[in-house]
Amino acid sequence: MKSIKLIKGCDLTFNNAIQEGQYVLLYLDKKRKWLVKILKDAKIHTHVGYVTLNTLIGKSYGSSIESSLGVTLWALKPTIEDYALKAERKTQVVYPKDMGMIAVKTGVSSGSIVVEAGTGSGVLCMFLANLVRPNGHVYSYEIRKEFLELAKKNLEKAGLSKYVTLKEADARKGLDVVNADVAIIDVGDPWSLVKPMYNALKGGGMLAAICPTMNQVEKLVEELKANNFIDIESMEVIVRGLEARMGMTRPVTRMIAHTAYLTFARKTQPSDKG
Amino acid sequence: MKSIKLIKGCDLTFNNAIQEGQYVLLYLDKKRKWLVKILKDAKIHTHVGYVTLNTLIGKSYGSSIESSLGVTLWALKPTIEDYALKAERKTQVVYPKDMGMIAVKTGVSSGSIVVEAGTGSGVLCMFLANLVRPNGHVYSYEIRKEFLELAKKNLEKAGLSKYVTLKEADARKGLDVVNADVAIIDVGDPWSLVKPMYNALKGGGMLAAICPTMNQVEKLVEELKANNFIDIESMEVIVRGLEARMGMTRPVTRMIAHTAYLTFARKTQPSDKG
Amino acid sequence: MKSIKLIKGCDLTFNNAIQEGQYVLLYLDKKRKWLVKILKDAKIHTHVGYVTLNTLIGKSYGSSIESSLGVTLWALKPTIEDYALKAERKTQVVYPKDMGMIAVKTGVSSGSIVVEAGTGSGVLCMFLANLVRPNGHVYSYEIRKEFLELAKKNLEKAGLSKYVTLKEADARKGLDVVNADVAIIDVGDPWSLVKPMYNALKGGGMLAAICPTMNQVEKLVEELKANNFIDIESMEVIVRGLEARMGMTRPVTRMIAHTAYLTFARKTQPSDKG
Amino acid sequence: MKSIKLIKGCDLTFNNAIQEGQYVLLYLDKKRKWLVKILKDAKIHTHVGYVTLNTLIGKSYGSSIESSLGVTLWALKPTIEDYALKAERKTQVVYPKDMGMIAVKTGVSSGSIVVEAGTGSGVLCMFLANLVRPNGHVYSYEIRKEFLELAKKNLEKAGLSKYVTLKEADARKGLDVVNADVAIIDVGDPWSLVKPMYNALKGGGMLAAICPTMNQVEKLVEELKANNFIDIESMEVIVRGLEARMGMTRPVTRMIAHTAYLTFARKTQPSDKG
Repeated sequence: MKSIKLIKGCDLTFNNAIQEGQYVLLYLDKKRKWLVKILKDAKIHTHVGYVTLNTLIGKSYGSSIESSLGVTLWALKPTIEDYALKAERKTQVVYPKDMGMIAVKTGVSSGSIVVEAGTGSGVLCMFLANLVRPNGHVYSYEIRKEFLELAKKNLEKAGLSKYVTLKEADARKGLDVVNADVAIIDVGDPWSLVKPMYNALKGGGMLAAICPTMNQVEKLVEELKANNFIDIESMEVIVRGLEARMGMTRPVTRMIAHTAYLTFARKTQPSDKG
Repeated sequence: MKSIKLIKGCDLTFNNAIQEGQYVLLYLDKKRKWLVKILKDAKIHTHVGYVTLNTLIGKSYGSSIESSLGVTLWALKPTIEDYALKAERKTQVVYPKDMGMIAVKTGVSSGSIVVEAGTGSGVLCMFLANLVRPNGHVYSYEIRKEFLELAKKNLEKAGLSKYVTLKEADARKGLDVVNADVAIIDVGDPWSLVKPMYNALKGGGMLAAICPTMNQVEKLVEELKANNFIDIESMEVIVRGLEARMGMTRPVTRMIAHTAYLTFARKTQPSDKG
Repeated sequence: MKSIKLIKGCDLTFNNAIQEGQYVLLYLDKKRKWLVKILKDAKIHTHVGYVTLNTLIGKSYGSSIESSLGVTLWALKPTIEDYALKAERKTQVVYPKDMGMIAVKTGVSSGSIVVEAGTGSGVLCMFLANLVRPNGHVYSYEIRKEFLELAKKNLEKAGLSKYVTLKEADARKGLDVVNADVAIIDVGDPWSLVKPMYNALKGGGMLAAICPTMNQVEKLVEELKANNFIDIESMEVIVRGLEARMGMTRPVTRMIAHTAYLTFARKTQPSDKG
Repeated sequence: MKSIKLIKGCDLTFNNAIQEGQYVLLYLDKKRKWLVKILKDAKIHTHVGYVTLNTLIGKSYGSSIESSLGVTLWALKPTIEDYALKAERKTQVVYPKDMGMIAVKTGVSSGSIVVEAGTGSGVLCMFLANLVRPNGHVYSYEIRKEFLELAKKNLEKAGLSKYVTLKEADARKGLDVVNADVAIIDVGDPWSLVKPMYNALKGGGMLAAICPTMNQVEKLVEELKANNFIDIESMEVIVRGLEARMGMTRPVTRMIAHTAYLTFARKTQPSDKG
């Protein structure tokens, strides 16, 4: 193999070794993956035998490991999607396809200030927190204490707690945030959050709402129009798998038909006299 | 209005004023938006009259401005999607819906090292650069000099040049990058990049490829299977607009039917003996 | 060519020759087709020159004809879809995809008695009339005289008038039909037709309604539930083209996103005491 | 209720009574329906108790019947879709959505001569036979004897045998049919049927093919282009359910993502010299 001349900035001293205390995605096949914490004495039991996790310490992510029954599994570094899909949940959570569209439409990225109403299980919160790192922050409101505790647990697992402030409060009564770049609404009565979110956003700030039903979208959009939001856009994101096999390629047989509609809008400042 | 008690970390001294030299998205309606640079003597001519941009200096983003014919437009802070949609292009560019899914599946975020083959007009590059800020980096390869120049221009406009290294080289011959977190393939012969990208990725690293045709996906997936990639998944992301109007809500009449299939895979290290 | 031994019932004396007075679909390419009547002195002018139609008399359907500029066109026998797509229209008409689903769900076929409210331009009526031939019948109600005249014209063109009774009347006030196999609702206030259609249908008869908005479906379904209809089902039918070219196969780029929702239901006879 | 003045042709002496020997669709709810034959001593056992079918004799279709446990079921007249969905099958069968599109694109209707290669379980055949009644005919070829027997059984159940000629033969070797209006291909190697079907069709006749994979479509379309077919069009038909409930309307959660691509084409007669 030819020697590699590295471009400036690409790290040759990079350490990709699995360390004690880290999480690993143990991969058997597409349908069987486990998110496990690497502890000295941890074993995981699967239907292909048990796996002794400490033998992974010091090995590179991407390495294989054999189960007690001689089956090969792979130790992968969990992505934010893995943490999201493996999160404990008590509610319907936001799907990756919808999180991706929220990222691209709102532009949430490093340094963003995000305010969210409806923490739920914290899955969208976790995704947003990962994007705003290291200088941004997510403020997330939830009225149900048991969800906040669940969200806290999920955020800690993903190592993202410090980028999030969870608050047990009714967001409809007003938010302790101003000048937010992005506002997220994920509650059953999204229209009741329009005014509080208007106040929390900076001028030109982006609002995104997640609504399972068409009726919610209808009422939300009316309220957005009445409250100085513009560029209002609603949509659904649909993902269809493709089974690619040489000479037999075709879409998958079954799919998720619907999760939620997404609505986006931008805050204007009509009273601003410059 | 009630007084606002701010949560720690939320910036009250925040300055959202438009400054000379910045870009503004001038918004008339959903179909008519202009990405303009605020210069002292700049005017933009539209079919609703001309707009004198310097009067916007010092006003908040989200403020309105009147055209010479008395029509109201809005001065918005461009999001990364606005920069992408308004980028100069000589090729079919990656759509926002596909960029969003790439973000969520690969987990590209602050600090990520990304290697891309097929810079094209630089639109996906721009989106990725915005996500890896401030400590990550995107290395993007392109064999056609005129595209690199175009990409450079687009990246500069969005203020993202410093997070990207553009390289005029044939990525099929090998890449000067190692230990990348994420590899992106956006060329007509994606299968020919599988081996170079394998070498550029760290163990467990994520690969994403953008392929317009099913035949490309077919050949790519065969090559991925033969080269120690696992968790291979192909899909299409479809966005359908919803026209939400009280009592008359329905999906939009026309839509984009297809842009490209997305394929994702993870690198394993079968030779790693730990 | 080998000699053909015909199965009983297959007609060897079959005459497929184009005759004067018939309609022909003149085909240049997928986007350029003309529905023309073969008359002795008829010419059609196209951008590829004019075509003298009488030279087609006596030739088989499927034959070619040259335009005055030497371009080949094809003389095809119009299908019911061709008549539908080429019908004169003053309204949004029912799409072929939706007509097909109505055919399969309601079972409209030879001998069926169909009652329709909302003739419109008569396109769905034409399709249904073609299915009920030769012993069934379609009764179609419309309150706007100008539409009835248009529908009449379209039905005559397709040679289907005798299978249809058009009636200028407000169907909401009751229908002069009983024991219909199938009821079709294609009006803006579909819920107001539920009771009249219940009375017009035979026990177990099928109702189909075409509604562009979800709000219409919502109100319609409530009304159906309240009026002894069962097996109520709403859906949308989406057609996406596939561009099949060797080595470059992919879905088409643009498509129709939405036409209308279809709702189906069956009449029960709860008061029937046997 | 007001007296009904009937339009000419609408049958008042119509008899909608269930008779011995007929099939009835016994309906409990959307997911639980049974296709049962009404015999003097027949009982059907369900999880809501048994139902004594002979009490239905003489009652109108659409009537209710009580199970031994006092649960109400409904006695519906089976539509062609019911016969299709309840047919015995040993293969993947053609879906209603695809049958509907075939009906509308090919124009199969009363009097049509249809030739089909690949009888399979006879479900599409049954649907076509119902459309060509009473003067048309379907010729269906199948090489696997066990499928022909199954198809025969399914056709008899639906009372459609006399409109169909089933033939145990390899359609690739030529068909004993000429001047067919419509040709249907539903086999794994559709391209091998293009020439035989060309010979079986009349000039301008319509061909329809059902192909699960895009590779099949690719090869088929190449063969159609090379064999004097025009107006070649491939597509997929996608059905998505809508859950309509007052104030909570939304698409269903799960759906069929793919069954098969449909390809349509028309036969030209380039050698015809008139």
